[in-house]
Amino acid sequence: MPLTGNLLIGQRAVTGTQAAIRAIDPATDKPLDPPYAGASAEQLAQACALAWTAFDEYRETPLERRANFLDTIAEQIEALGDELIHRAVAETGLPAARIQGERTRTCTQLRTFARVVRAGEWLDVRVDHALPARQPLPRADLRQRQVALGPVAVFGASNFPLAFSVAGGDTASALAAGCPVVVKAHSAHPGTSELVGQAVARAVQMCELPEGVFSLLYGAGRDIGLGLVNDPRIKAVGFTGSRSGGAALCQAAQARPEPIPVYAEMSSINPVFLFDAALQTRGEVLAQGFVASLTQGAGQFCTNPGLLIARQGPALQGFIAAAGEQLQRTAAQTMLTPGIFAAYAAGVAALAANRNAQRVASGQAPQGPNQCQAQLFLTEAKAFLGDPALQAEVFGAVSLVVACDSDAQVRQVAEHLEGQLTATLHLDEADFDSARNLLPTLERKAGRILLNGWPTGVEVCDAMVHGGPFPATSDTRSTSVGTAAILRFLRPVCYQDLPDALLPAELQHANPLHLRRLVDGKREG
Amino acid sequence: MPLTGNLLIGQRAVTGTQAAIRAIDPATDKPLDPPYAGASAEQLAQACALAWTAFDEYRETPLERRANFLDTIAEQIEALGDELIHRAVAETGLPAARIQGERTRTCTQLRTFARVVRAGEWLDVRVDHALPARQPLPRADLRQRQVALGPVAVFGASNFPLAFSVAGGDTASALAAGCPVVVKAHSAHPGTSELVGQAVARAVQMCELPEGVFSLLYGAGRDIGLGLVNDPRIKAVGFTGSRSGGAALCQAAQARPEPIPVYAEMSSINPVFLFDAALQTRGEVLAQGFVASLTQGAGQFCTNPGLLIARQGPALQGFIAAAGEQLQRTAAQTMLTPGIFAAYAAGVAALAANRNAQRVASGQAPQGPNQCQAQLFLTEAKAFLGDPALQAEVFGAVSLVVACDSDAQVRQVAEHLEGQLTATLHLDEADFDSARNLLPTLERKAGRILLNGWPTGVEVCDAMVHGGPFPATSDTRSTSVGTAAILRFLRPVCYQDLPDALLPAELQHANPLHLRRLVDGKREG
Repeated sequence: MPLTGNLLIGQRAVTGTQAAIRAIDPATDKPLDPPYAGASAEQLAQACALAWTAFDEYRETPLERRANFLDTIAEQIEALGDELIHRAVAETGLPAARIQGERTRTCTQLRTFARVVRAGEWLDVRVDHALPARQPLPRADLRQRQVALGPVAVFGASNFPLAFSVAGGDTASALAAGCPVVVKAHSAHPGTSELVGQAVARAVQMCELPEGVFSLLYGAGRDIGLGLVNDPRIKAVGFTGSRSGGAALCQAAQARPEPIPVYAEMSSINPVFLFDAALQTRGEVLAQGFVASLTQGAGQFCTNPGLLIARQGPALQGFIAAAGEQLQRTAAQTMLTPGIFAAYAAGVAALAANRNAQRVASGQAPQGPNQCQAQLFLTEAKAFLGDPALQAEVFGAVSLVVACDSDAQVRQVAEHLEGQLTATLHLDEADFDSARNLLPTLERKAGRILLNGWPTGVEVCDAMVHGGPFPATSDTRSTSVGTAAILRFLRPVCYQDLPDALLPAELQHANPLHLRRLVDGKREG
Repeated sequence: MPLTGNLLIGQRAVTGTQAAIRAIDPATDKPLDPPYAGASAEQLAQACALAWTAFDEYRETPLERRANFLDTIAEQIEALGDELIHRAVAETGLPAARIQGERTRTCTQLRTFARVVRAGEWLDVRVDHALPARQPLPRADLRQRQVALGPVAVFGASNFPLAFSVAGGDTASALAAGCPVVVKAHSAHPGTSELVGQAVARAVQMCELPEGVFSLLYGAGRDIGLGLVNDPRIKAVGFTGSRSGGAALCQAAQARPEPIPVYAEMSSINPVFLFDAALQTRGEVLAQGFVASLTQGAGQFCTNPGLLIARQGPALQGFIAAAGEQLQRTAAQTMLTPGIFAAYAAGVAALAANRNAQRVASGQAPQGPNQCQAQLFLTEAKAFLGDPALQAEVFGAVSLVVACDSDAQVRQVAEHLEGQLTATLHLDEADFDSARNLLPTLERKAGRILLNGWPTGVEVCDAMVHGGPFPATSDTRSTSVGTAAILRFLRPVCYQDLPDALLPAELQHANPLHLRRLVDGKREG
């Protein structure tokens, strides 16, 4: 199927009328065909109007039908075959195996949400029966369920062309919740976006859903994104990207006549705490694991380990030496876009120029354009505590070791950190007491706490939290990965004294959907 | 126990150093002793620092101990006896029976949250066991629970001196979630606030909790409130009050270096839809019910029925005539404060001066200061749709009838409404089809939909939603009344591969707290 460069406004493929973007193969710096003309304000409004028209019908689709739609999207993405893999590789510089793995994850994610939709626990049905004889006042019959928030604007992410883009986590969870989705494709991979968008649009048609359930827009610059956030028919936003981009969307969403929630995942340096006994008994193994996590995918993960914190001493020195050796054997890797490479280079240059930081190792030199040469820096806790610049995220394979005097200083550094997606502890049993003292701080700072692992790699399951306090995300009450992500696009509605004839099926007296409900304070089923 | 006029900073009763406020008996316009000097910036910071110091310990108190604390607060409020009732009556102009009922509700609410804490479902424990042999990659052991957000700033509300104030819904749900609370007392009832604050502080002491779990501040003007929202140790805000006040807090919370959630309940006119068959068969009964709901508590409820929508015709005319007659027999009632009375009078004057609205009935004339004379106005749908001023909330006993040409116009008016706490339908079976067409709109507009009842009166139970789309609240994903309110002060944290020795009890492998958990996708227990 040839790429067309067209927007998808519901089931209509139309050419944008604004400035075009083109993907660039970052391995060659060459632009890729076709051009993707940006959506006009009218085209954006059409997509939002269609989404709004579709909303009331789509949010009440029976659970089985909605789940089947999610399954069908997964099938249609798989049916794209190698064309999707080739295009994504060309647009991102990522290896084919990584894209294939990401496709598996994306489709598994869609099917996982299909399972969640069928189970219906997210409806959180609560029933309090009428108590007509209660004194001093009778109680009415009260029933609560969760309903969809409304059409959601989803912003594709640069670093996950499938799993966090057109049919990625935000789209899957929003569709699962009953929200139509208008996607703004990331400009780094418009062809991948078009292919996946066509797959979603085919699933909409095959499942005979209202066409406005899904639209896909392109656009250069920030106008299209701000246009989406400002459209009164959009009721929530999902975004993964830079801190400045996320902040701009949050500000716009709050300034609307009707403010709306923004779920922006932004900035995290994912501190890793290396405790003494672990460093002493297996420093070299830790160094290998660290460098593998740091350099995976050229370090272009939200959960990349950008900060190592440990007590100084021979064990830490040994770790740094081993990590440095490992790093020097690491080949440079092509980054996602020339822009991301430029930002990485600038971030590394700033660290190199910072008198508080010392470069201790580098990866192999670049062999082509836009290649990330991994870097390891070292600083002392005192310097780190006094210099906010050392806490700024540099997206890519760079990490900073913070050497501390004492356990107390380790805790001081932890307390000084901004909010994070993850915090990792490497320890042996002899370190348990030190770790136990640190845990309360880490629980306040991060969405996920790992022991003796590495933060890259985010499982799609019920217990996952991919979220965390600001600036890791704009809303720490939520996760963007895992089944709990459906909750972010819902709100509760209570029905008082409505008869079955007017109640939705999930709230009717005989419980025809066989849901697990909270009835008069007791859990059923 | 004499009132002191003191702030409560943890267990210390201290005198504020800023301008003092005094309650005014609205029935006599006379100021009441003692004066309540406002907290200084330093005193505010002390309260927040204590709350922060208490946070890590308090959020991990065993469930039974935390539940016992909530029960103890209820006991200590009851132990205040008639002194509390007398003071609240003097400060609010509300009848003693109403205050007694509100005390019962407040204590029941605290005990309900104690039950919720003990049951532990709010921890939403999710366990995904390790799958070490999974291909292509093993799965780690992943466990999720909810943890408290942090210290919460609670703003007392003018219209519920007990149930939405110092130990009201926001305080009860925040304490239940594990969040210390710093209350800013409403300036209309500082004496009531002090009495309840002393009861809470005694419960803190009796339960041997860290003193920072609760503080109580007073202050004139907006400085103290904005100071609380801007303090970096405050992590969430609960507010019930005006639209402008709520908007100011939201703006401040978003402008912080670390933005925080604000749960502001602001403005709602609670539309009531009167359908043809119901109007024809029982117009007079409906008129009685309406006037009783409208004038209860001088109309000073968030859920006061401020808007009636019906098709014009003889049945509606009969209803208006009956309601008018009923209203004319209604005595004027003292409002909560001179300021609220002045705002009510201005709102009524604006309606009276509006050429699109016609006054159809008034209650009896005032017999004393600050008395609310109930009012009923009439307008036509066309005028209502064209004049946003007719949709502005006037806090107090005033309502506006919107006469429509057709069912289609009824729906048009519904679609034109801003977000609401409630929407009410009065109908007979013959009206079901009309109602069914309207329900999707109402689900998008309101947090609670009632049939053949009146919106005043909010049950504290599992299924209640006291919330709704903006401007009813600033966060439609949440409720301020009912057990689901605990969820607003929580965030999820995931623990990966932590051993029992480092896990909180609720996540340990043997499930020592016997919680209902979601384990490998299946619901346990």
